[in-house]
Amino acid sequence: MSMVDVSRKPEAFREATATGSICLRKTTVKRIKEGEIEKGDVFTVAKIAGISAAKKTSELLPLCHPLPLTNVDVQVKVKDESTITAEATVKTIAKTGVEMEALVAVSTALLTVWDMTKQYEKDEAGQYPHTVIEEIHVIHKEKQEGKH
Amino acid sequence: MSMVDVSRKPEAFREATATGSICLRKTTVKRIKEGEIEKGDVFTVAKIAGISAAKKTSELLPLCHPLPLTNVDVQVKVKDESTITAEATVKTIAKTGVEMEALVAVSTALLTVWDMTKQYEKDEAGQYPHTVIEEIHVIHKEKQEGKH
Amino acid sequence: MSMVDVSRKPEAFREATATGSICLRKTTVKRIKEGEIEKGDVFTVAKIAGISAAKKTSELLPLCHPLPLTNVDVQVKVKDESTITAEATVKTIAKTGVEMEALVAVSTALLTVWDMTKQYEKDEAGQYPHTVIEEIHVIHKEKQEGKH
Amino acid sequence: MSMVDVSRKPEAFREATATGSICLRKTTVKRIKEGEIEKGDVFTVAKIAGISAAKKTSELLPLCHPLPLTNVDVQVKVKDESTITAEATVKTIAKTGVEMEALVAVSTALLTVWDMTKQYEKDEAGQYPHTVIEEIHVIHKEKQEGKH
Amino acid sequence: MSMVDVSRKPEAFREATATGSICLRKTTVKRIKEGEIEKGDVFTVAKIAGISAAKKTSELLPLCHPLPLTNVDVQVKVKDESTITAEATVKTIAKTGVEMEALVAVSTALLTVWDMTKQYEKDEAGQYPHTVIEEIHVIHKEKQEGKH
Amino acid sequence: MSMVDVSRKPEAFREATATGSICLRKTTVKRIKEGEIEKGDVFTVAKIAGISAAKKTSELLPLCHPLPLTNVDVQVKVKDESTITAEATVKTIAKTGVEMEALVAVSTALLTVWDMTKQYEKDEAGQYPHTVIEEIHVIHKEKQEGKH
Repeated sequence: MSMVDVSRKPEAFREATATGSICLRKTTVKRIKEGEIEKGDVFTVAKIAGISAAKKTSELLPLCHPLPLTNVDVQVKVKDESTITAEATVKTIAKTGVEMEALVAVSTALLTVWDMTKQYEKDEAGQYPHTVIEEIHVIHKEKQEGKH
Repeated sequence: MSMVDVSRKPEAFREATATGSICLRKTTVKRIKEGEIEKGDVFTVAKIAGISAAKKTSELLPLCHPLPLTNVDVQVKVKDESTITAEATVKTIAKTGVEMEALVAVSTALLTVWDMTKQYEKDEAGQYPHTVIEEIHVIHKEKQEGKH
Repeated sequence: MSMVDVSRKPEAFREATATGSICLRKTTVKRIKEGEIEKGDVFTVAKIAGISAAKKTSELLPLCHPLPLTNVDVQVKVKDESTITAEATVKTIAKTGVEMEALVAVSTALLTVWDMTKQYEKDEAGQYPHTVIEEIHVIHKEKQEGKH
Repeated sequence: MSMVDVSRKPEAFREATATGSICLRKTTVKRIKEGEIEKGDVFTVAKIAGISAAKKTSELLPLCHPLPLTNVDVQVKVKDESTITAEATVKTIAKTGVEMEALVAVSTALLTVWDMTKQYEKDEAGQYPHTVIEEIHVIHKEKQEGKH
Repeated sequence: MSMVDVSRKPEAFREATATGSICLRKTTVKRIKEGEIEKGDVFTVAKIAGISAAKKTSELLPLCHPLPLTNVDVQVKVKDESTITAEATVKTIAKTGVEMEALVAVSTALLTVWDMTKQYEKDEAGQYPHTVIEEIHVIHKEKQEGKH
Repeated sequence: MSMVDVSRKPEAFREATATGSICLRKTTVKRIKEGEIEKGDVFTVAKIAGISAAKKTSELLPLCHPLPLTNVDVQVKVKDESTITAEATVKTIAKTGVEMEALVAVSTALLTVWDMTKQYEKDEAGQYPHTVIEEIHVIHKEKQEGKH
């Protein structure tokens, strides 16, 4: 069991974008759009949670290297009447890529949406028959050597 | 924007189970089954990452309460020739539920599977056309008052 | 050098409220009021940072006990044309009080306001002649035994 | 809501110094000077807390970049019969400045002084009528390009 | 791979004491005794590092439960002309014991002694022929039911 | 009390290897060899704990600099019928060395072995008469300038 040894790899500009979505009840998405979520502004809290989590990636994933992220951008949007999407772009100048950081940001942003809308998603038995996080994947990954 | 005030809620035994899956190339799943992943034992590393992440839930999700978890169990399994599933059960005696902790454990276990199999999932352009995390949801949530 | 031993102290409902303020340029406060801060919604980001920091108090202050906070509420407001205030109320059922948690929340919320408005506060030499955090203090602290 | 993208900014030597103070009862300051604080050596504990907190800045402030700090120096001193001051200087070779790190170090050092002297500052009702943290500000910030 | 499920175990007062030592050059121990360590007061810094680490035990050891520690006491002393010892006592009211917390505190206190005396321990080739941490063990562990 | 200022030191390739051991009952070591430890795979869990801890070194040791580790490798092995050893090698390109990171990885790996085998090591009075961590030391440290 081991980390990849990146000691001798050259530093390069690295960028990765990931995305994913969460399906909620239509009434919950309506509430989000209308700013009627009691716990507060879902978009802003989810974005911050995503950014903060990206910076914790090497704590969460045992074999990830700690990287000096130069940018994390997280967008959280209403996609359709029952779906919220999160998209995260992470950048660094480093010896290895940042797709895991982008994926951690997306996952945590979506989990934060869930946490903020829990009370509207539970049924009378306290279960979540509708809520599901889906399609977390990497859209694009890029490396530019010798340009930073 | 605010946390829910649980000061006056009674403590109860709480349990929640969440699950989710990651789709990988069939050749990667075959490697996992045969123990041919260069970074190490995917199941054990993903389980530990899930357990450790559950304990960090209140750091990751801004409005979550810190809870004294009494058990976290994470199972990671081959579901079919292109899918690995993670399932997490979290328990506590506390004033609020642990479904977010179970969801964080599942998400992090699946992200760890991704991180450990990255090299087999990338195409020649360094992209991930096949890899996707899916269907993260809560299977069951339970509260038992006055029994602990 | 030692922590206070609270092993034999009874659990009680504990609440503490702290406040403090940050003086900014009038043009910066005007921008905040008008939602013209490039980095985003100062109030929401500062509140979240304050709540998250309260949960980290025992990591930041070496002799503080880890406590199961049951509520953290942070308010960030424009006080006058050159001042933003933060106020935090923290609650727990525990063996020791939460005034340090409230103070950490206030300090971190105010530091976040600074971080988000840096670009408008610096003079042409890159210095901060106007910006200052002031009057961080505890407004009220309370203990109720045997009521939780 | 977003971090500043510093990917293309050049690395430079960065230094920032911040300061602030805490007003305590004269009898408490006298105790500090005479080494009569039951919880231990206030100066050393506050310095360490400040240094450790500076290293956590990007965890505490959501939009801060993680930076490889090359030095953190914190001084805690008696200023006059009712005031203790903290001063922190932080250095790095990085793409962005370290004033927030210096401010976090100062704030945390002062909060640690408070935590260590709580028992002498409370009145008989358990309140803090005298204790206040004041004047946290940046004294100086500096950037030297091309010299490291 | 799993944590022990302590959900149904009764809470009890728990206490554990661990100890260990570090062998240093005699000239280094002499410096410590005379307060001639350039990095500062070895005893106080090591104690604080031990206390802070005890609070992080469940982050460091994957299968440890998070516990609400009610006291952590760390003593660091000169044992003889080439040995420094650390002893840590940890207390809690919880469903499981705190010997791992005491061991983490001792280990981290001793590692901090090493870190603070590195410059005197290295030989001219930058190696550490003399320095060694030894005999980390649990002295005593105790549980008192129904007394808290 | 202060960190060493490494601002003006050149970056170099740094590597350090540390080792240590834990003495257990022969019956426990036999169980480990036969995969009969109820909590799971001791070797893998201890390795991951060691790697994760190395990444936390600057959080644990107050005067350590945060470093961008490029590799952490931890080996955990049966040495003889009553001894398990851990060995960690850490690499970076940085302004200061990584021996403390290697020592933290070894200590944490050994503490994890203890935590996973606790139930077999305790005597009927709940004490640990046999278990002891020993001989934690640096085997080798190296610096290569101008080669990365």
